[in-house]
Amino acid sequence: MSKRLSETYVHGYHPRENERLQDQAGTLVDLLHCDTAYTGGSTVLEAGCGVGAQTVTLAQRSPDARFTSIDISADSITEAKRRVDAAGLTNVEFRQADIFALPFDAESFDHVFVCFVLEHLSRPVGALAILSRLLKPGGTITVIEGDHGSTYFHPDSPAAHAAIKCQVELQREAGGNALIGRQLYPLMVEAGFDAVRVSPRMVYVDSSRPELVDGFTRKTFTAMIEGIRDSAIARGLIEPESFDAGVRDLHRTTEADGVFCYTFFKGVATKE
Amino acid sequence: MSKRLSETYVHGYHPRENERLQDQAGTLVDLLHCDTAYTGGSTVLEAGCGVGAQTVTLAQRSPDARFTSIDISADSITEAKRRVDAAGLTNVEFRQADIFALPFDAESFDHVFVCFVLEHLSRPVGALAILSRLLKPGGTITVIEGDHGSTYFHPDSPAAHAAIKCQVELQREAGGNALIGRQLYPLMVEAGFDAVRVSPRMVYVDSSRPELVDGFTRKTFTAMIEGIRDSAIARGLIEPESFDAGVRDLHRTTEADGVFCYTFFKGVATKE
Repeated sequence: MSKRLSETYVHGYHPRENERLQDQAGTLVDLLHCDTAYTGGSTVLEAGCGVGAQTVTLAQRSPDARFTSIDISADSITEAKRRVDAAGLTNVEFRQADIFALPFDAESFDHVFVCFVLEHLSRPVGALAILSRLLKPGGTITVIEGDHGSTYFHPDSPAAHAAIKCQVELQREAGGNALIGRQLYPLMVEAGFDAVRVSPRMVYVDSSRPELVDGFTRKTFTAMIEGIRDSAIARGLIEPESFDAGVRDLHRTTEADGVFCYTFFKGVATKE
Repeated sequence: MSKRLSETYVHGYHPRENERLQDQAGTLVDLLHCDTAYTGGSTVLEAGCGVGAQTVTLAQRSPDARFTSIDISADSITEAKRRVDAAGLTNVEFRQADIFALPFDAESFDHVFVCFVLEHLSRPVGALAILSRLLKPGGTITVIEGDHGSTYFHPDSPAAHAAIKCQVELQREAGGNALIGRQLYPLMVEAGFDAVRVSPRMVYVDSSRPELVDGFTRKTFTAMIEGIRDSAIARGLIEPESFDAGVRDLHRTTEADGVFCYTFFKGVATKE
């Protein structure tokens, strides 16, 4: 992440945000990571590890691969390291670094992994091209991003969509793109990757799946929207009453007859 | 969109089986029907068979089950029978009947199958309750519906969304619900079914999947929207220029950097 963006990282760096990301990884781990495994001895760069929400999963699933996880925030690195240590993992090395000024030689890694990072960058293709240079020929890149425009639910609610749009707009103002998931394919192609293959990872939630109702709809997605209330109102994007109505309607989708849908996208490609 | 779907050769993706399906040519038929099979000797009511688009698939996949396919339209029944005969199938019996006045005794069938029908009914729960009565205890119902509100794409386009909204509105004026897919779970629960399980069937299209670009984005979805141009304009739902711009933008998503997403929902439940 660029320095400018780290200052305006739309989700913030608060403890509650850490908790949200952990909940997110916890409930979505299979959906997002079930098909990611690196062979023993391979070297993997995790670019933008944040507080390590994905790092623990990655390192656990590929115990004999060696991970180098970087993030622009020293505080995040500290927390990520704590988590990895707490999980008893010894195959992760952390470094504080800017994705646009990485301290690695060209063709240093067998694989690159990027999750929930491009959405915050004003130059995602530039970042992908930089990461491509760090890959050995034949190496792979894996990119996972959400797409807030993939959100729909029952009962439908214009107010809830308006609240979600505030998040999209705040992220746009910060130089990011909350609708980036659907764009992974063209972005990865533009960055020069070969054999780009994107697959959707849809989270479907109804009341027969109570752990998703609580873990995803309530504590991940709606909590994220609730978290931008003050910023959205301060920027004049929405009236407080409208925002609160939207959040109420998001909570409404967690009732017995409610349904909530969100889709992540996962792209895998190789460097020729 | 029911008539076109089965004729369309496309790839399909299940949320948890992305990798397998990515490497395997398939059809939209596979995406929707791969997990539907009835045991030999069981009796299945297909309610609302239309021109037999799904009937042929059903009967082929369960050659030893006996199907009774009904539709309110005699012309549709004639065409459905022609298709089933052309496919050499002998396990389907057709009857012209209204789903709200079916000429069958209670508990006549082992299973009921309903595809792209509820979206056109003003009383979908009433229809489901009627179908439930025809089921033997322990029998299953399978329901498949689309959801036009699940449509999003790259490049994004307000004009394209406005054109799609015309379809939603026309269907609503006709007493139907083009956003019914996401509601399958609560509708089936409300109708009294037990063990309701709904799964999304997302169609993800980028230019690495040219059969889907042509077969789904262009010839299925965009063609469906193009087909309501005159009605939408006649009803005053949209200006001709806006509609045409929307259709152009839908076609734009079929270019090399375009992406198109749509989700069907499949619900399966049992009668206690």
